[in-house]
Amino acid sequence: MRIALLGAGRIGRLHAELLAGLTDAEGLFIADIDGERAKAVASEVGATAVPDSLEAIERADASVIAAPTDAHATLIRRSLARGIPTFCEKPLAASLEETIDLVRLIDASDVPVQVGFQRRFDPAYQEARRLVTNGGLGIIYLIRLAGHDPAPPHEAYIPTSGGIFRDFSIHDFDALRYLTASEVTQVYADGSVRGFPVFAKYRDVDTAVATLRLADGTLAVLTAARHDPLGYDVRTELFGSRDSVAIGLGQRTPLRSLEPDVPSPVGPLWSDFLIRFRDAYRAELAEFLRVARGGAPSPCTASDGLAALRVAEAADRSLHEHRVVMLDEIPF
Amino acid sequence: MRIALLGAGRIGRLHAELLAGLTDAEGLFIADIDGERAKAVASEVGATAVPDSLEAIERADASVIAAPTDAHATLIRRSLARGIPTFCEKPLAASLEETIDLVRLIDASDVPVQVGFQRRFDPAYQEARRLVTNGGLGIIYLIRLAGHDPAPPHEAYIPTSGGIFRDFSIHDFDALRYLTASEVTQVYADGSVRGFPVFAKYRDVDTAVATLRLADGTLAVLTAARHDPLGYDVRTELFGSRDSVAIGLGQRTPLRSLEPDVPSPVGPLWSDFLIRFRDAYRAELAEFLRVARGGAPSPCTASDGLAALRVAEAADRSLHEHRVVMLDEIPF
Amino acid sequence: MRIALLGAGRIGRLHAELLAGLTDAEGLFIADIDGERAKAVASEVGATAVPDSLEAIERADASVIAAPTDAHATLIRRSLARGIPTFCEKPLAASLEETIDLVRLIDASDVPVQVGFQRRFDPAYQEARRLVTNGGLGIIYLIRLAGHDPAPPHEAYIPTSGGIFRDFSIHDFDALRYLTASEVTQVYADGSVRGFPVFAKYRDVDTAVATLRLADGTLAVLTAARHDPLGYDVRTELFGSRDSVAIGLGQRTPLRSLEPDVPSPVGPLWSDFLIRFRDAYRAELAEFLRVARGGAPSPCTASDGLAALRVAEAADRSLHEHRVVMLDEIPF
Amino acid sequence: MRIALLGAGRIGRLHAELLAGLTDAEGLFIADIDGERAKAVASEVGATAVPDSLEAIERADASVIAAPTDAHATLIRRSLARGIPTFCEKPLAASLEETIDLVRLIDASDVPVQVGFQRRFDPAYQEARRLVTNGGLGIIYLIRLAGHDPAPPHEAYIPTSGGIFRDFSIHDFDALRYLTASEVTQVYADGSVRGFPVFAKYRDVDTAVATLRLADGTLAVLTAARHDPLGYDVRTELFGSRDSVAIGLGQRTPLRSLEPDVPSPVGPLWSDFLIRFRDAYRAELAEFLRVARGGAPSPCTASDGLAALRVAEAADRSLHEHRVVMLDEIPF
Repeated sequence: MRIALLGAGRIGRLHAELLAGLTDAEGLFIADIDGERAKAVASEVGATAVPDSLEAIERADASVIAAPTDAHATLIRRSLARGIPTFCEKPLAASLEETIDLVRLIDASDVPVQVGFQRRFDPAYQEARRLVTNGGLGIIYLIRLAGHDPAPPHEAYIPTSGGIFRDFSIHDFDALRYLTASEVTQVYADGSVRGFPVFAKYRDVDTAVATLRLADGTLAVLTAARHDPLGYDVRTELFGSRDSVAIGLGQRTPLRSLEPDVPSPVGPLWSDFLIRFRDAYRAELAEFLRVARGGAPSPCTASDGLAALRVAEAADRSLHEHRVVMLDEIPF
Repeated sequence: MRIALLGAGRIGRLHAELLAGLTDAEGLFIADIDGERAKAVASEVGATAVPDSLEAIERADASVIAAPTDAHATLIRRSLARGIPTFCEKPLAASLEETIDLVRLIDASDVPVQVGFQRRFDPAYQEARRLVTNGGLGIIYLIRLAGHDPAPPHEAYIPTSGGIFRDFSIHDFDALRYLTASEVTQVYADGSVRGFPVFAKYRDVDTAVATLRLADGTLAVLTAARHDPLGYDVRTELFGSRDSVAIGLGQRTPLRSLEPDVPSPVGPLWSDFLIRFRDAYRAELAEFLRVARGGAPSPCTASDGLAALRVAEAADRSLHEHRVVMLDEIPF
Repeated sequence: MRIALLGAGRIGRLHAELLAGLTDAEGLFIADIDGERAKAVASEVGATAVPDSLEAIERADASVIAAPTDAHATLIRRSLARGIPTFCEKPLAASLEETIDLVRLIDASDVPVQVGFQRRFDPAYQEARRLVTNGGLGIIYLIRLAGHDPAPPHEAYIPTSGGIFRDFSIHDFDALRYLTASEVTQVYADGSVRGFPVFAKYRDVDTAVATLRLADGTLAVLTAARHDPLGYDVRTELFGSRDSVAIGLGQRTPLRSLEPDVPSPVGPLWSDFLIRFRDAYRAELAEFLRVARGGAPSPCTASDGLAALRVAEAADRSLHEHRVVMLDEIPF
Repeated sequence: MRIALLGAGRIGRLHAELLAGLTDAEGLFIADIDGERAKAVASEVGATAVPDSLEAIERADASVIAAPTDAHATLIRRSLARGIPTFCEKPLAASLEETIDLVRLIDASDVPVQVGFQRRFDPAYQEARRLVTNGGLGIIYLIRLAGHDPAPPHEAYIPTSGGIFRDFSIHDFDALRYLTASEVTQVYADGSVRGFPVFAKYRDVDTAVATLRLADGTLAVLTAARHDPLGYDVRTELFGSRDSVAIGLGQRTPLRSLEPDVPSPVGPLWSDFLIRFRDAYRAELAEFLRVARGGAPSPCTASDGLAALRVAEAADRSLHEHRVVMLDEIPF
């Protein structure tokens, strides 16, 4: 199995390292718009640097796309043209319209495409989904989602990000669908610029909240922050008629209890997503290799990518229009 | 210091016990609409049962009102007429209009009135407020509030409760004001009947969510549930530019982590508000005795009671009208 | 053709008179809950009074229902049970739920049912519809609807009316559908109690406004008033890319121009709906007789009745919830 | 009295002609960014062309500003600096922020400023206001406003216009304030592109509707269109408990009745605002000359201009955010 890894930036480097451990490194063809970066990563993991993505795709049996967002759609189209299984980091494309077009194209093809929502491969998320599915939680009352990043991105990234909901909370929107196997029907969102005025320059915010209603009446709340001084805080709590459970709550959670009898955590807190979800990323790529070999259907399809994006679109619209937005208002 | 304790139900009995430990039990005059209940509680704690509230107020130097909500306003008016310091469990009155009238009456008098928001006397809440005030948290980004009750009230109580926000979340609305020393300016709320259809009979819900915006742009989310199978879960998390802290998070929190490395809690979880906040109730009454002796101003005034109620009103209106409600829309 | 006329009140008496002129008066069986009233009207027009609606229906080939709203559904069911063509004044039933049930029942039967939206038989409305249909107006830009009644109903009627939109503006909602052959997709409505505080007692208003959006983007505004000192003012203006036309504008319009060069109207202004739409009522009943004889399909079906009611429901919800309401939110 | 007329375009030319008839034409100094245009207009009316607005202001005792919108603020500041009474066509400035600044500056000066809402000088508007003020209408129930322009502006103008509400309906917003002496408190607006897709390019619309609520509960509806094939249709109807009256309704109204007994209008319909409001413009300028001579206070102050603009801002926000907007949300 020869793999084209397209993009050798922060997340591309992680994928290179993980793929090198999961498959034959020599068959890993790495391309990046910055050729030197491709060479450096390839040499680190024993893979092969190639001059451009076209050549990488040409020589490979499967693609893994970790390039900047604005290149995703083009690279997916190229992989589809070659008919090779494709993994792509979220989002599939830079706009809703382009995403809708891509999903149609993918659905009309026979090529499996997997979108990179790595939380689906984290054991605690998987256990929570199991408890929802097998009735271990009973009727779901409420879901509380938190996604707090350790530090804001560089300014250059902000205008390309699509805003906090499309860029960051989209992982929580996918998690909500994954955990409940249900769809969001309405969203109310609000946001604020609290610590980093640069976000206001781009009509974006550095903190945000949302309430979400699912098709069956289950309610969820979400918070998102671009800065958390203690680390990377991604948690989900599910409250049901039979049990109350938490994902991401433990010794490494960057949250300090003020209760008198709680000891301080020993050992390092979760500091970023690469550390927090490293095992999930590995499991995700391992699953993609199974998909690429024809051994499994895509565990996170292009339609899943679109569905999460539509929730993000609704949240963004709610934030800017100061009103409740129904998912029905968002094209698909 | 002779005290009239008006009401000997669940919360009245707790107050009787705590007051008996804080002051001379013989000077504690207990009245209840059910005379037998007053006698039983009085005999338990060594206090004096009296036939009715008028006599209790007549003989006392201060009042503690723990009667049903619909009697609050009348009992406060009687205490004011006697000019004696008065403690009253929330809410001050059964409607917003009556509360506004009472606040005007109280403001025009010299009699100190203290409203029973006991969380203000919990050490973790006090520490969190200290951290906000002294800058220990830096800029506040987000606040997350959870109030999940172990079991729903009896059906007879539901139509008198004013709904989940006025009855239950009002403690969180007061806590939000107490912690931040800031005012809520807008609310969006939603709710659902998930486990207990009886709430629908009274246009009430058994689970609810809200997002709140404070005057300075701080955002908060809140969840409320009438049932939690693991116990009484009241938590608040505050995220700021310098620290991330939690109230109510520890060994007794009724929440089960799904992370693989987290041990199960040893010892009992918090099961109800009397256990969770027993110390806070004692501290609250101790403070009221100081207030009654003229040694301190009211730590939670009638205006504070009104302010929290107005947030609850806005949340209730939002829930029923499916739209964002500005606090300016609520009379005061 | 023998006809059961059920109800001999204000509108029933008009129908009696018109039917007596359109068909054989002896075959007109009039029943009313007030037997004396039935006799009086029957003797006026040369018809036959019968003791109750069951007997009238039993002896007739078609029913005309002009009874109070709360009897409509029962009388329709009885006519359907007999299988005879049925005309019913709006509304079909007292609630949306019951209307939905009735529409299903009617659709499942072969019995023609005609709902009484008489404006569909007014020449100016018919000409306007023709101009929309044949392109005489071009692209429709805007529609302006006014429905101003000369005087408010008796207090006893108000709580049974369903509110100003279901009771009164429903004629304009039907007219909007009839004129454009298009459906309303969203409504924003507001209302006020200006002259008659009695409406507030029943959560109703005496003046109201609405904006409506049709499926193709056409916009409409509507005003409704329970009192107009000059008379009965029902007008509709349609603005298109080729023409700008008005219904209800002329010498009898109860509206006084302040322009210096406009003479005062000569002759009487329209004073009430019986005068304004008398010819339309006659044409409506004449058409029903054609329908009853099998000569034409119903010109205003039960589904049309439901569709107009759903717009009224949306307007009422908007009024009470202070927000835009999508028609999709209303059951059907 | 020497007057600087700044701007010699369409409206400037009208002002030149009217001013020449009202005062000594030789003392009328006309400047325009297009010097030839200034000369042509000056020679037409016997006035004096000057090379630039600075010189015109320097030589005059009063300014009349009829330049493009983006020059208004600068020209007002220059007139204020010279301390001469100033008339300015609406709007005062190109943005809300700049308008707020200007109003402060004007209020702090002693220089009278008059904003050009010419409808205040139309006899029918004045009579309607008189009837509101003296009780001739009784309690006001409803107000219906229509503003339909004969043809859309050139494309180049659209992006500078501020959108249909700021550019066009602002005259109706001012009229509403003038007629009722009351303030708008909330607005819901919607809009559509029906005939001229070019408006969509600039996030503008060619037809619009709004409902407005005044401080005392009076309700109003408004329609606005950029095209009316029959002419220029500006009408206002006021419905009260004592009378129902219309402005702009008569032989020249570009609206065709479909009622059978209404004759077609004889003579020309109103074709544009210059014809419809020519007399009002003359009366407006005559009044400004009185103001400039110190004989009267400004009949339409900068604060009036700001107040109408704030309603337009609220309507524009409502249109784009699909929700009700409170006037309180708009800065002032």
